[in-house]
Amino acid sequence: MKIKILTLFPEMFSPLRCSIIGRAAEKGILDIQLYNIRDYTADKHGRCDDTPFGGGAGMVMTPQPIVDAMAAADPLHELQHIYVSPKGEKLSHSLAKELGASDGFVLLCGHYEGVDQRAIDLTVDREISVGDYVLTGGELAAMVIADAAARFVPGVLGSSDSAQEESFSDGLLEYPQYTRPQEFMGLQVPEVLVSGHHANIEKWRREQAEKITAARRPDLLGK
Amino acid sequence: MKIKILTLFPEMFSPLRCSIIGRAAEKGILDIQLYNIRDYTADKHGRCDDTPFGGGAGMVMTPQPIVDAMAAADPLHELQHIYVSPKGEKLSHSLAKELGASDGFVLLCGHYEGVDQRAIDLTVDREISVGDYVLTGGELAAMVIADAAARFVPGVLGSSDSAQEESFSDGLLEYPQYTRPQEFMGLQVPEVLVSGHHANIEKWRREQAEKITAARRPDLLGK
Repeated sequence: MKIKILTLFPEMFSPLRCSIIGRAAEKGILDIQLYNIRDYTADKHGRCDDTPFGGGAGMVMTPQPIVDAMAAADPLHELQHIYVSPKGEKLSHSLAKELGASDGFVLLCGHYEGVDQRAIDLTVDREISVGDYVLTGGELAAMVIADAAARFVPGVLGSSDSAQEESFSDGLLEYPQYTRPQEFMGLQVPEVLVSGHHANIEKWRREQAEKITAARRPDLLGK
Repeated sequence: MKIKILTLFPEMFSPLRCSIIGRAAEKGILDIQLYNIRDYTADKHGRCDDTPFGGGAGMVMTPQPIVDAMAAADPLHELQHIYVSPKGEKLSHSLAKELGASDGFVLLCGHYEGVDQRAIDLTVDREISVGDYVLTGGELAAMVIADAAARFVPGVLGSSDSAQEESFSDGLLEYPQYTRPQEFMGLQVPEVLVSGHHANIEKWRREQAEKITAARRPDLLGK
């Protein structure tokens, strides 16, 4: 899967070079490319932002460098162009799965007070938000979208890991996990988990998942 | 504000050294400290995970290194201890504001299939989720929480930036922004924004914010 990211801060993207996503990129399962928007500005001083028309705090990213960076990243518009923004549709388990099944996408990261609306109108297919809060820039949110989607690409998670049994995959939050030692600071692992009785273990985990979901996220049970 | 982060992947945290958050840390407004959980394991092979009791895919982080790392990060338990998890309460504009008004917090990042439940029971005050999706680890989510909260710490956003006028601050998504040039690829900036008439500009922006919110997130209007 191709993930292309347009940003003013390419130095922020070290998380995508580490651990699970980093290994998948090394193996060629993910093709992650960064485009520094500043490299595409036609402004002779290298500027990519300016004050907002109509007044107000902060700076707004100018449209020209974004439109040209997008044309460089995906000249034939073969991929979905996503603007990362708190105004977008909310990222969910199912949206991540949908993106993970695609050939890839381009993520446009805003910074400062945002992006000139015309750059969005001209280049963006879809706006996606990672949640109902504001960040200092779109970079962290872009990495969240890339990571959540990439987990669904075959081969990204090792065969020992799994996107099958986890929170949201069956509409429930996940049951609690335990590992060695069996006793830690006076606390025992629940007996059923060391019983070796698989049907009972499965039943206990299902009950725990339902209990946690009912207590913390009753809204999920209705779905 | 103190932000302490317990992680197996400290090399992922470059985003907190860049741009707005990085500058605030340099100025001493934010005190961000990383703790490598692996430095605290008592296992002679340096292991911090093991297979889950009861079977199942993946590895679970063992409790001892986490409990000891937490004791090192906040020995007197002066800060809130937060486990970053899709099972937690959901991060929101108001929760970010609440965290930003505190003295600080410790963020525990899970990885692999999660963390032994006893480590959570013994050290964690609160679980917070950044959204209804699963990530390959808690690191990106921890940075999202740190960033969203830090924006509310006085001095982190420059006086020209602002956490006052933005999506969610008044229960609405933000109005569209425009900057120079006034005409770009045949698209004009809306006339009202170049009129100089401040009351009309404010009215237009309010109408646009209401229109976008009604179209995209009618659920926010009821609140």
